[in-house]
Amino acid sequence: MSGIIEELLQSIGKESLLTAEEAANRPASLWLSNDNLNCKALLRPANTQEVSKALKICNDHGQTVVPHGGLTGVARGEKTGPEDIAISLERMNSIEEINLQNKTVTVQAGVILQDLQNAVADKGLLFPLDLGSKGSCMIGGNISTNAGGLQALRYGVTRQLVLGLEVVMADGTIISSMNKMLKNNAGYDLKQLFIGSEGTLGIITRAVLKLEDAPKSRNTAMVALKSFNHAVDFLNRSKRDLNSTLTTYEIFWNDYYRLMTTPPSEYKPPLAQDYPFYVLMETLGQDEKSDEERFHQHLESCLTEGVIEDASPATSHQEFTNLWGIREKVELIFQIHQPVFLFDVSLPISEMENYISSIEKQYRSEWDEVHFYAYGHMGDGNLHMYVCCGENDHKTRHRVEEIAFEPLKAIGGSVTAEHGLGLEKKPWVHYCRTPEELALMRTLKNALDPKGILNRGKVISETFPTFKHQN
Amino acid sequence: MSGIIEELLQSIGKESLLTAEEAANRPASLWLSNDNLNCKALLRPANTQEVSKALKICNDHGQTVVPHGGLTGVARGEKTGPEDIAISLERMNSIEEINLQNKTVTVQAGVILQDLQNAVADKGLLFPLDLGSKGSCMIGGNISTNAGGLQALRYGVTRQLVLGLEVVMADGTIISSMNKMLKNNAGYDLKQLFIGSEGTLGIITRAVLKLEDAPKSRNTAMVALKSFNHAVDFLNRSKRDLNSTLTTYEIFWNDYYRLMTTPPSEYKPPLAQDYPFYVLMETLGQDEKSDEERFHQHLESCLTEGVIEDASPATSHQEFTNLWGIREKVELIFQIHQPVFLFDVSLPISEMENYISSIEKQYRSEWDEVHFYAYGHMGDGNLHMYVCCGENDHKTRHRVEEIAFEPLKAIGGSVTAEHGLGLEKKPWVHYCRTPEELALMRTLKNALDPKGILNRGKVISETFPTFKHQN
Repeated sequence: MSGIIEELLQSIGKESLLTAEEAANRPASLWLSNDNLNCKALLRPANTQEVSKALKICNDHGQTVVPHGGLTGVARGEKTGPEDIAISLERMNSIEEINLQNKTVTVQAGVILQDLQNAVADKGLLFPLDLGSKGSCMIGGNISTNAGGLQALRYGVTRQLVLGLEVVMADGTIISSMNKMLKNNAGYDLKQLFIGSEGTLGIITRAVLKLEDAPKSRNTAMVALKSFNHAVDFLNRSKRDLNSTLTTYEIFWNDYYRLMTTPPSEYKPPLAQDYPFYVLMETLGQDEKSDEERFHQHLESCLTEGVIEDASPATSHQEFTNLWGIREKVELIFQIHQPVFLFDVSLPISEMENYISSIEKQYRSEWDEVHFYAYGHMGDGNLHMYVCCGENDHKTRHRVEEIAFEPLKAIGGSVTAEHGLGLEKKPWVHYCRTPEELALMRTLKNALDPKGILNRGKVISETFPTFKHQN
Repeated sequence: MSGIIEELLQSIGKESLLTAEEAANRPASLWLSNDNLNCKALLRPANTQEVSKALKICNDHGQTVVPHGGLTGVARGEKTGPEDIAISLERMNSIEEINLQNKTVTVQAGVILQDLQNAVADKGLLFPLDLGSKGSCMIGGNISTNAGGLQALRYGVTRQLVLGLEVVMADGTIISSMNKMLKNNAGYDLKQLFIGSEGTLGIITRAVLKLEDAPKSRNTAMVALKSFNHAVDFLNRSKRDLNSTLTTYEIFWNDYYRLMTTPPSEYKPPLAQDYPFYVLMETLGQDEKSDEERFHQHLESCLTEGVIEDASPATSHQEFTNLWGIREKVELIFQIHQPVFLFDVSLPISEMENYISSIEKQYRSEWDEVHFYAYGHMGDGNLHMYVCCGENDHKTRHRVEEIAFEPLKAIGGSVTAEHGLGLEKKPWVHYCRTPEELALMRTLKNALDPKGILNRGKVISETFPTFKHQN
């Protein structure tokens, strides 16, 4: 047994450490591969103090460490090799306090998102982060990747939901910044550094999160539109006329809708399959009767005025499940196609239609057989594309990515809206960040993790130039 | 003329530099003193390049620099001495682009908040930051202090409204992070470092801000309550029953209300003066008719159910102006009392009543003549207190502050919710931040401004220990 493993065992105990052989029984990722976990050891600390002790030892040894949450990420931020020690927060899964008066919840990082949603719902409150992977993903991972999801249009991304954080730095120092206040300008807002930095600046161990009143009404519909411009018009009207209750507005291009409503998909088409665009929309509100009336009135007047072509509101739990299945059951794409290249881009709404049609055209011009599915959080300026073509090799991936990312530079978009850079999107970051920005990121990394032990090689390259003070 | 002034003149020209003598004709602060500006020179750069050139020269010389916006701050973040060079962003006051489709505005840092509000309102949009000082404060100052204001309850503080920033670092490097996307997880979210750090990490020169639809309805009322618990109940009901239109919820303790509605105040009491608490509430919405109906219905049912004691909705522009005057004309306190010690604390709503009554009692026990006025953004957990007692000397100030701040430690509050630490609140930061947090702030300061030229001595002390990597 290597010296560091022995030292870790002595410090945090056997229950908190799986050897490489033991860890190899576990999956490396829930989504992206069937590989087993390949690492020097997997730590499963029981509390913040154990995380601190472990990081102190790893830092002393210059040992690289990869934080693990629910392993639902899609940018390979969780990737380990035999030289890495993984730290899973899975045992730190306690919901410590739900404060009804101040509407906050205090959690450990390993709490599963859905467990958190359910626990606060039982108290009449809402934690409004909602993702397809909610049954597996952990709140620490959601925070460290600044997850977006299905209700960001109304409630913001994870960054907007975090009030306080506890973080263990590379050297084991515990930064307890467990603020519960909505407003606190007493010095730098340190938590912002760790939100969205994908475990490269510190390991999140606990958090204080903001809650909302649980909704009393929920209205959901699939809507068909005859053009992208109509979808823009309908979005603007829905934001304006639904009195701030609009929570979800997901657009589907025709190919995606058709795939998800045709066998082998288990979901039925709520509307005919020949419209160019569909929108899954949902409102959450506090007044069951008037919210439902307003929702239906809105759909009807948009139908009458020709803004939308058809609408199918969910009138039963079964219909509701069917509508949401169409949006969420994206595993289907991986089941029927190989390879699948997944994208998560940000771009102005005004550029979306042209962007999608021009990259699709490019794919079809370079490969004979192409399956291309586009949908996304339109109201957030965030689209996902699944591109299925060619071989599952590096050359194909590189070219497929280049086609998707290259146009973003000119239109001011981003190569990742919500998934993060991880390993996978990192090579393309220069399309959306300047050399000075990358150098400043490197400066922060060097200041906070000088030995570079935390998730080394993810997010920022070792080769980024340092921000040089010109003196 | 000293060497550095000569060098600056050569680099950025006469129009962009006022000498110490010229600067001495200008005020040092709009609020806190009648002093004239005391500095080595005042730079008035015309553009980002001039800011960059000037900072490069200052950094080479180890010359301290104090960024100036509208000088409306109340924490003395703008304070200069004869050894400092001030940099005013006042000439960089261009609104560069209002994008109607993507609902963003791109501005230079010297734009006056009210000018920005008006410019976007002309296009049917809303920039929802709203402060009493909007006629003088500049957006760069709002961002660097993470201003809160009157509509944060609904739209969030300034941090939530900023999409992109351009910042000049201490050494003159321009970080152009002018993101226009609502979601962008491509690397560290660098803008967060500069929002709320009060000019100690970089000088903000431009920004991209998020806009909302302009409201079509505005309903405003003063409400009287018989206890603080009733004010909590009324807040929760108003959030829930007004369908997300509640935008402002400002509580006044009786002494404040009485002062502001009695001559020499120019404002009339809309409600009798003998209730213990009053709330100024406002909704903004998109449906003039139904919003007004809902607002009045809500007030009526709360009256009937005994949640509130009385209500006076504004039915004319004059009444509207009177209600808002009661909230905003706080200068009156400075006109009739000397000295006035102003506070801006955060604390859980559940602690507010006890906190205010116990500190008031303490003031009255230590001074014979005490005037104590409390009000605040209750929905944000943020109260302001004006304490008028004793002499305008250091000893009095220290004790008055100690009484206000000491209880915050135990209840997890903050010594500043929105005003910032500046010079004035800095000595008390240890009541709400841990030694590890302060050390991490110092580490960031050292990494980004190694010579410490930017607003030296503000926010973080030179004497904070550095975050030490224990290896």
